[in-house]
Amino acid sequence: MNKHGGYYGNSDIIDYSVNINPLGLTDNIRETIISSIDNICKYPDIGGTSAKEAVAKHINVGSNKIIMGNGASELIYLFARALKPKKVLIIEPTFNEYRRAFLLAGSEIDDYVLDSDDDFRFNEDMFSRKMEAFQPDVVILCNPNNPTGKYLGLEMMSEIVDIVKRENSFLFIDESFVEFTGYEPIGNSIDYEHIFSLRSMTKYYAVPGLRIGYGVTNDKIIEKMEEYKEPWTMNTFALDIVPKVIGDKSFCVKVNRWVKIEREYMYEGLSNVRNLKVYKSYSNFFLCKLNYLSGNMLNLELLKDNMYVRVCDDFKSLDEGFVRIGIKRHVDNEKMVSILNKIL
Amino acid sequence: MNKHGGYYGNSDIIDYSVNINPLGLTDNIRETIISSIDNICKYPDIGGTSAKEAVAKHINVGSNKIIMGNGASELIYLFARALKPKKVLIIEPTFNEYRRAFLLAGSEIDDYVLDSDDDFRFNEDMFSRKMEAFQPDVVILCNPNNPTGKYLGLEMMSEIVDIVKRENSFLFIDESFVEFTGYEPIGNSIDYEHIFSLRSMTKYYAVPGLRIGYGVTNDKIIEKMEEYKEPWTMNTFALDIVPKVIGDKSFCVKVNRWVKIEREYMYEGLSNVRNLKVYKSYSNFFLCKLNYLSGNMLNLELLKDNMYVRVCDDFKSLDEGFVRIGIKRHVDNEKMVSILNKIL
Repeated sequence: MNKHGGYYGNSDIIDYSVNINPLGLTDNIRETIISSIDNICKYPDIGGTSAKEAVAKHINVGSNKIIMGNGASELIYLFARALKPKKVLIIEPTFNEYRRAFLLAGSEIDDYVLDSDDDFRFNEDMFSRKMEAFQPDVVILCNPNNPTGKYLGLEMMSEIVDIVKRENSFLFIDESFVEFTGYEPIGNSIDYEHIFSLRSMTKYYAVPGLRIGYGVTNDKIIEKMEEYKEPWTMNTFALDIVPKVIGDKSFCVKVNRWVKIEREYMYEGLSNVRNLKVYKSYSNFFLCKLNYLSGNMLNLELLKDNMYVRVCDDFKSLDEGFVRIGIKRHVDNEKMVSILNKIL
Repeated sequence: MNKHGGYYGNSDIIDYSVNINPLGLTDNIRETIISSIDNICKYPDIGGTSAKEAVAKHINVGSNKIIMGNGASELIYLFARALKPKKVLIIEPTFNEYRRAFLLAGSEIDDYVLDSDDDFRFNEDMFSRKMEAFQPDVVILCNPNNPTGKYLGLEMMSEIVDIVKRENSFLFIDESFVEFTGYEPIGNSIDYEHIFSLRSMTKYYAVPGLRIGYGVTNDKIIEKMEEYKEPWTMNTFALDIVPKVIGDKSFCVKVNRWVKIEREYMYEGLSNVRNLKVYKSYSNFFLCKLNYLSGNMLNLELLKDNMYVRVCDDFKSLDEGFVRIGIKRHVDNEKMVSILNKIL
């Protein structure tokens, strides 16, 4: 198993190592779970039909282009296993499950590593040359990216897709955090012939414990994945929740307002902390580079105040000097900024 | 996806096609779910530690010999994927996910098909010859078997394990229904060096919607499976429920009493139905052979009374003339027997 944030999730720690919307559950989710309890005596729908149809309606795409997953993670592994690409190019540093999934599926992996000293800038010429040289069957890109928070807009994404098409490759794009950017998912503007868009309900809807993800792509890829999909991977609560919460307007307004305000507040606050460089983020977390303290040392200090961040030493090209700091409620963010100012 | 029972699970049908304990949820499960709702905002424990420890304690086996699964089905597929056995022998007719899982993993499959005309009797000499001839890396046996309800006792199982050892093979034994037999799981008496015992909490505890299974084997196989296991496959409710319900004495007493009484009642009742042969069962369902009506025709008749059984045409060596009939509450069982007497 890879290392991940969230290890202090069950204690009194304010856990800045996870990327979950901190506003908590809506009454809607709570009520749906209670009213679904009796449904657990029956097998969940083997194909998750009603949930899939709710997603299809919400994103305005045919349900034959959608696949539901037991969290986005099921779909990363399923895609790798079903497509078995010979060569995979990963845009690094990024979420470390892609590498594990494709290695287990037997793929050869190469990276295009974005440079922290160059602000993790995506250089389309370098990407194009890498594509020509390596000729990958699949390219993996997380957008906005975890852990850097970087976001490539539609213009850059269109160029990337053009290069991917030119090289007869395929783009697997993880848009698990897209709702936090305020922008539309890329699939709304680019057809799915050469892309798989991975989406998660975990982060935005704050339901990591339920395991809900989905993918959107063309029907040929869906068919191939369904051929390999295991039965009953999604539990009853997950399936019952999807139609009730996806696109819940009052919830979205609240979350979008919170993330916009707190992202600005945290960016400002973290920018003023000495000995810490913060990278601009379009998501609900910030990657930061520490000047002299290691992330683990920082955590030892933070834990005295019941706080904790994600040390990024397991991400490609990053090291113990990098930490990822989530965005939480305002009162916690104030505390985090203030404590960092004391420690660093 | 394979065909399965339970397609009428969401309507007013009394669904005799599923093999779930019909006594419903205990207050214990209901209360645990309600008190766990706030936990879904946190990631579930990536390795399911607390649930695993509860299972270890319950079955009195070290937790290094246990692997938790998102239902037993995750573990069938994970075992196949991680072990990638070249040759697999399946004792048929049986649950059809084994075949799919090992085919997807690239295994060559052969069968030892038990004969319905010989009461699905397991012949150890024929098995031994098949083992010698085919030299499988893995043998799959479901005990008690779905859909036949046949159960091989400890003496026969010991002989089978001896043959498996002799041929340097490995026995994957699905004991998902063992609690209904009144006998101990085989692993309590035979060491795990050459066996993987698959267990499910779905059927006995009536929680198919939660997805809870586990496997017990030696630590080498566990390590290999963990190498391939995907992260966060089990949801928060499943993990929180396990320590609360496993081995719940008053619940077990109630379920064991129900299945014993109703199995006898149903066997007696079904035995007296004309044009239907019932096979003796040690589980919570009966395989029956119809004399002239097809299972689908029978269902058309049964649906008039809001009942439904599992037609077994997709099981190896069985056809439309075989149906699997679950054991339900007494009032429903009376109704089923009475209606079958009218129809057949």
